[in-house]
Amino acid sequence: MSQSRIARLRQVMDSDTPFLVSNLVNIRYLSGFTGSNALLLISMESAFLLTDSRYEIQSRRECPEIDVVISRDLFGSAIELLQTPALAIEGSALSVTHWQRIAKQVPDLQVAEPLIEGLRIVKDSTEIAVVSKACDISTASLEILKTEIHFGMTERQIARRLESLMLDMGADSIAFQTIVASGPNSAIPHHKPTDRPLQKGDLLKIDFGALVDGYHADCTRTFTAGKAADWQKELHECVLASQHNGIKALAPDVDFGVVVRAANAPLQEAGFMDKFTHGLGHGVGLEIHEQPFLSSPIGGKIVQNMVVTIEPGVYLPDLGGIRIEDTIVITSFASEVLTKFTYELTSVG
Amino acid sequence: MSQSRIARLRQVMDSDTPFLVSNLVNIRYLSGFTGSNALLLISMESAFLLTDSRYEIQSRRECPEIDVVISRDLFGSAIELLQTPALAIEGSALSVTHWQRIAKQVPDLQVAEPLIEGLRIVKDSTEIAVVSKACDISTASLEILKTEIHFGMTERQIARRLESLMLDMGADSIAFQTIVASGPNSAIPHHKPTDRPLQKGDLLKIDFGALVDGYHADCTRTFTAGKAADWQKELHECVLASQHNGIKALAPDVDFGVVVRAANAPLQEAGFMDKFTHGLGHGVGLEIHEQPFLSSPIGGKIVQNMVVTIEPGVYLPDLGGIRIEDTIVITSFASEVLTKFTYELTSVG
Repeated sequence: MSQSRIARLRQVMDSDTPFLVSNLVNIRYLSGFTGSNALLLISMESAFLLTDSRYEIQSRRECPEIDVVISRDLFGSAIELLQTPALAIEGSALSVTHWQRIAKQVPDLQVAEPLIEGLRIVKDSTEIAVVSKACDISTASLEILKTEIHFGMTERQIARRLESLMLDMGADSIAFQTIVASGPNSAIPHHKPTDRPLQKGDLLKIDFGALVDGYHADCTRTFTAGKAADWQKELHECVLASQHNGIKALAPDVDFGVVVRAANAPLQEAGFMDKFTHGLGHGVGLEIHEQPFLSSPIGGKIVQNMVVTIEPGVYLPDLGGIRIEDTIVITSFASEVLTKFTYELTSVG
Repeated sequence: MSQSRIARLRQVMDSDTPFLVSNLVNIRYLSGFTGSNALLLISMESAFLLTDSRYEIQSRRECPEIDVVISRDLFGSAIELLQTPALAIEGSALSVTHWQRIAKQVPDLQVAEPLIEGLRIVKDSTEIAVVSKACDISTASLEILKTEIHFGMTERQIARRLESLMLDMGADSIAFQTIVASGPNSAIPHHKPTDRPLQKGDLLKIDFGALVDGYHADCTRTFTAGKAADWQKELHECVLASQHNGIKALAPDVDFGVVVRAANAPLQEAGFMDKFTHGLGHGVGLEIHEQPFLSSPIGGKIVQNMVVTIEPGVYLPDLGGIRIEDTIVITSFASEVLTKFTYELTSVG
């Protein structure tokens, strides 16, 4: 695995300039190393993983095909390994402090394009299998949770129970801080669970996911506590139409803009565009938010084996909000939803 | 809270140079904002929190005394707010990409000393209360877990159970990836739980903690699966002597080096110093590892209301390892262990 990914990087990197990878997610992607402190130095001829003594055994186990260097000073050791005056670094993953230090010793220090993020956009079959597993654990947990929610349960209690279910089903951890937002709190897109108890008439928005082998799942469903009011049904119908339009538009070679416009149409028609305050979707993989970002101003095309979310939402301050989100893999001709869970507006409590 | 911490920063920062805080932990410390995307721009006259629309409601709720600016381009908006040609940034928390962008528009761009990390070293009473709560949840969970562990339970199962217990007892989440390492795996200082089942004769090392209101607990105990072998008893006695020496040495005005030497003495005497491959301890607070770092080459003095760990460990490759770790607050004349849990070598299974 690591050898083929490093080979792909070598095809796109400047062959005269060694590449110092400092983003730990990119290091994991290229080398398989999962520790919390490392650098990866890649040239056309060699690849060195630098880490500290805590990870000596683990790094050799996880990266059998890469030369491991154990050091107390990773940047110092990386510079010592250099055989050229040139070095390329990751501009978004290197601090100013480290940049200034390296610049003193490396005459031709360059900021590389985000090449590895580019490679990571299109997933291989192993990655898709792991994301699928994370999505299966997530939705199976929500199926159980749905039957257990009752009036008076707090947002925190609901979140904790969902997290326990995911861990019990084999998640390594949760993919991100679970959002459970009830009543007026559901109007806050990224709400942190509180001790507010669930009340009859509430909207209940749950945005959550499992983490498996470093890969994330991302799913949102909004429920009603008790029987849905008419305005809740109408709002849900509108957001659902937006989400289905977005998913239907996903196919190889389609412009991001086409997907965004398709999803926006029902919201525009209903006059809700100013209540949809975030992007339509994003890539999911080793990070919960990664390229591609599906928002209007950024161009690009959908490609087979991308994994993305489609997650329109409408937030009515003080009243409530609805978001519906799936994690989706692009197939050879269309797309497949990985977070399979009913789209019907479901009543809980 | 936020006003007094910002006032403390203003006492130490350069009064002519606005300070752009980009480290999210430092932003939380100064402002109370807990979202995942923000900048904080502080001058002697003003304080602006910049974040995106997802956090509009949350930021105004969490930072009632600070001017909130909602923007799609935080760095662009921060530069627009500047009324001086000078700006200081956090060198370790700003990427090269952002640095180069700001440098184009700000003529006098400076790297500030890590002033906020300096303020964070000494905790206030609110912080100590929250760390104590996180420590109480951690050790109470371990008390229950201890009675439930049985032969054949896998490392992953033990870790998941411990995490569920902490969440059920009120932890917001786990403080870091739980380490459960059995048998030969216990010789790996930072081991990731596997499906290895617990076997009679194993050492079982558990390094874990709860997270409460952003504050971390950090605790390690090592058990034996079944009756302890003599070599396990001797090893445990040696590491425990080291840990107790370290804790006993903690008091205001004591040099870090004195603490390290006290803790090292029993390991040196037993010939284990080369098997103790990490630092003796570190600060704990809004980060699981923060200043001060208690390792030999770094100087400094213990100060009242620091919260630190003392965590010696001896790792015998392929055989097993023992670490004993507590989170400890420095009092006016000595120290108090916050992770109260027996030091006796306890048999489980």
